[in-house]
Amino acid sequence: MMKVSKVNGERLWGSLMDMAKVGATERGGNCRLALSREDLAGRELFMGWCREAGLSIAFDAIGNLFARREGQDNSLPPIVMGSHLDTQPKGGRFDGIYGVLSGLEVVRCLNEQGIEIRQPIEIAVWTNEEGARFTPAMFGSAVFTGILPLQTALDARDAQGISVAEALADIGHSGDLPLQRAFDSYFEAHIEQGPILEDNGLPVGVVTGGQAICWLDVQVGGVSAHAGTTPMPLRKDALFGVAEMASVLESIARDFAPKGLVTVGQLEIAKSSRNTIPGRINFTVDLRHHEDQQIAAMEQAVYERLQIVADKRGLSLAISRHWLSPATPFDADCVAAVRSAVQLLGYPHQDIVSGAGHDAIHLAGHCPTTMIFIPCVGGLSHNEAEDALPDDVRMGCDVLLNAVLQRAQHLSD
Amino acid sequence: MMKVSKVNGERLWGSLMDMAKVGATERGGNCRLALSREDLAGRELFMGWCREAGLSIAFDAIGNLFARREGQDNSLPPIVMGSHLDTQPKGGRFDGIYGVLSGLEVVRCLNEQGIEIRQPIEIAVWTNEEGARFTPAMFGSAVFTGILPLQTALDARDAQGISVAEALADIGHSGDLPLQRAFDSYFEAHIEQGPILEDNGLPVGVVTGGQAICWLDVQVGGVSAHAGTTPMPLRKDALFGVAEMASVLESIARDFAPKGLVTVGQLEIAKSSRNTIPGRINFTVDLRHHEDQQIAAMEQAVYERLQIVADKRGLSLAISRHWLSPATPFDADCVAAVRSAVQLLGYPHQDIVSGAGHDAIHLAGHCPTTMIFIPCVGGLSHNEAEDALPDDVRMGCDVLLNAVLQRAQHLSD
Repeated sequence: MMKVSKVNGERLWGSLMDMAKVGATERGGNCRLALSREDLAGRELFMGWCREAGLSIAFDAIGNLFARREGQDNSLPPIVMGSHLDTQPKGGRFDGIYGVLSGLEVVRCLNEQGIEIRQPIEIAVWTNEEGARFTPAMFGSAVFTGILPLQTALDARDAQGISVAEALADIGHSGDLPLQRAFDSYFEAHIEQGPILEDNGLPVGVVTGGQAICWLDVQVGGVSAHAGTTPMPLRKDALFGVAEMASVLESIARDFAPKGLVTVGQLEIAKSSRNTIPGRINFTVDLRHHEDQQIAAMEQAVYERLQIVADKRGLSLAISRHWLSPATPFDADCVAAVRSAVQLLGYPHQDIVSGAGHDAIHLAGHCPTTMIFIPCVGGLSHNEAEDALPDDVRMGCDVLLNAVLQRAQHLSD
Repeated sequence: MMKVSKVNGERLWGSLMDMAKVGATERGGNCRLALSREDLAGRELFMGWCREAGLSIAFDAIGNLFARREGQDNSLPPIVMGSHLDTQPKGGRFDGIYGVLSGLEVVRCLNEQGIEIRQPIEIAVWTNEEGARFTPAMFGSAVFTGILPLQTALDARDAQGISVAEALADIGHSGDLPLQRAFDSYFEAHIEQGPILEDNGLPVGVVTGGQAICWLDVQVGGVSAHAGTTPMPLRKDALFGVAEMASVLESIARDFAPKGLVTVGQLEIAKSSRNTIPGRINFTVDLRHHEDQQIAAMEQAVYERLQIVADKRGLSLAISRHWLSPATPFDADCVAAVRSAVQLLGYPHQDIVSGAGHDAIHLAGHCPTTMIFIPCVGGLSHNEAEDALPDDVRMGCDVLLNAVLQRAQHLSD
């Protein structure tokens, strides 16, 4: 049986709190928009810690930052840990940052415990994961993995008209590390950004993949008419039709419980007025499920069951698929390494599927990948009040350390 | 039994079509915004016809135009017919115009049939009934009846910043006829602006009053959260809550059928995003009923039954009353005069309550008032495609003529 290593939870917490001083907001959150002066300051703080830990720093052409610890055989591709340091405009102290600084804490432990590993170890800081300054989100990892063309990314502009190329030149973090270079594997520790682990009282989630997402656009047409002069039986009220459709959507979520999720996030009444019967309404549907086959069944149910409502009410209905992102199962060996680590440590845990997008979702198409979740208080993130408990922060990092050791072990066997 | 008089339907239709050339829009509608050059041109066409019919023209301080036929005893207050000549930006050829030109046709008939009446007869053209250029709607009649202070009205400005006072000076239609001067009675012929008469195949509606209107503002609070990471049972989704509330509102309309009307005309999700569970939603409720007691019961049902939905779902709920306009029963004698006229003529008809606002609703607080409705095609108004059938136009005006004769008869008995 393998020896269990433990991280220094206080040191990790201290680094998180030091990073949280960079771009601190009034209400205890952080604002480090991608490639801004604040993002640069956060990166420089991190780079200083990396140099103290003996790591070398390099960048690729989209500003992804890699801090490298050499291995016994540097011809091998690196085991990579990481996440991002940029935040939402009113973001929290843990989203992304936890994955980067956990990687640093792992390296610090390897160093002080004198653990040599065959492969190089790298900590990745992906550019503009949040998508708050430049769209889309998960920007740097998309370019690295070839999902987003480099030139398209460099030409993207923020709300002030500043391009990514200009912002990168401004902070000087563009480099020549090749895109799409080989990784042995990628491990990303992250707060859950949901309430499941907290609700179940568990400090660690073994993430088995990312769920499938299907976005639909729905347009419902009735007849706009005067609210005062049109008897109820003669109306074709789009709003009451959409209300019934929304209730049907909620019942579809029940039919696919507990893995199926349904959200109507946007709804707009065309030319709305207090005393006019709505004649046309557009709304969005966000469907999620762990399995591709099930999300297809959910989508089919939406088409069929909304049509029944429309037909019954004499409304027109047009549904179009806006986007479909298949389920992303994580690498079985990497997931096994995390599971083995958490069992070795004896920490309470559960399997969980990532509901949010992460750089790891892109990386999963590039190399063996997985994630480790810890709870966040109240399930809250993208919020200045985002919080995590020091014990959970420590235990999640213990899992990361031992999973990486499992992975290295596995390869050096 | 009283002699039946008939109007000249072709002449009335011809006048309507001539008026429709003023501010004609591409799709067969009219644009004569209140106090605009087009409105002035429409008024001048009408004034020319009035002068040919021997009428004198005068204005009050808010630009309401009165064309007067002297009576046998000019110390008596006038019997007034009328409506408005201004239109919506893409309005139709009948809304308002029909009431004014029917009044003119009545006078033309009295003249050519040599009918002398004790009271003076006036045709009123109320300023800015539509409220499309200056708010509120039913503007001129509100000032005339003392509901809207004159100075407030004169200071009102359109979207370009032009005040009513400036617009009035521009077209020169301000005069010194006293506001709130005595009327014997007020009769307004109008298209129904709803589908009831057409649906019942009837050419005339005997309008017994205006319905009560209650406007509510509803605010529903849940918890905004990530659409991908929040399990359905842990959500407090304001949108699904509002959907159930809307269905409850629709069922309240059924409980108060057929006189109760319920409309949700506006609905806004705060900070809406496709992949965010809605946390706060505001929506409006428009309740209508013929009877004050019943609209109070409807309002109470809204408070009680929406609260049940909110409690069940753990949502916050705040409902506030935005506006309450009591039912406006029309004058029994005037309604009787219309009913007597329509029976005398032998025209199919029904009693009906006005669903929309009209100048007559304001006038009802000032003098004995009623209205006569004719069908409009498809119930459509405030639309370039607004239409009415020549036979209905003629029959409605026959009713107006004979109702006015009944009223004069009644007083001269």
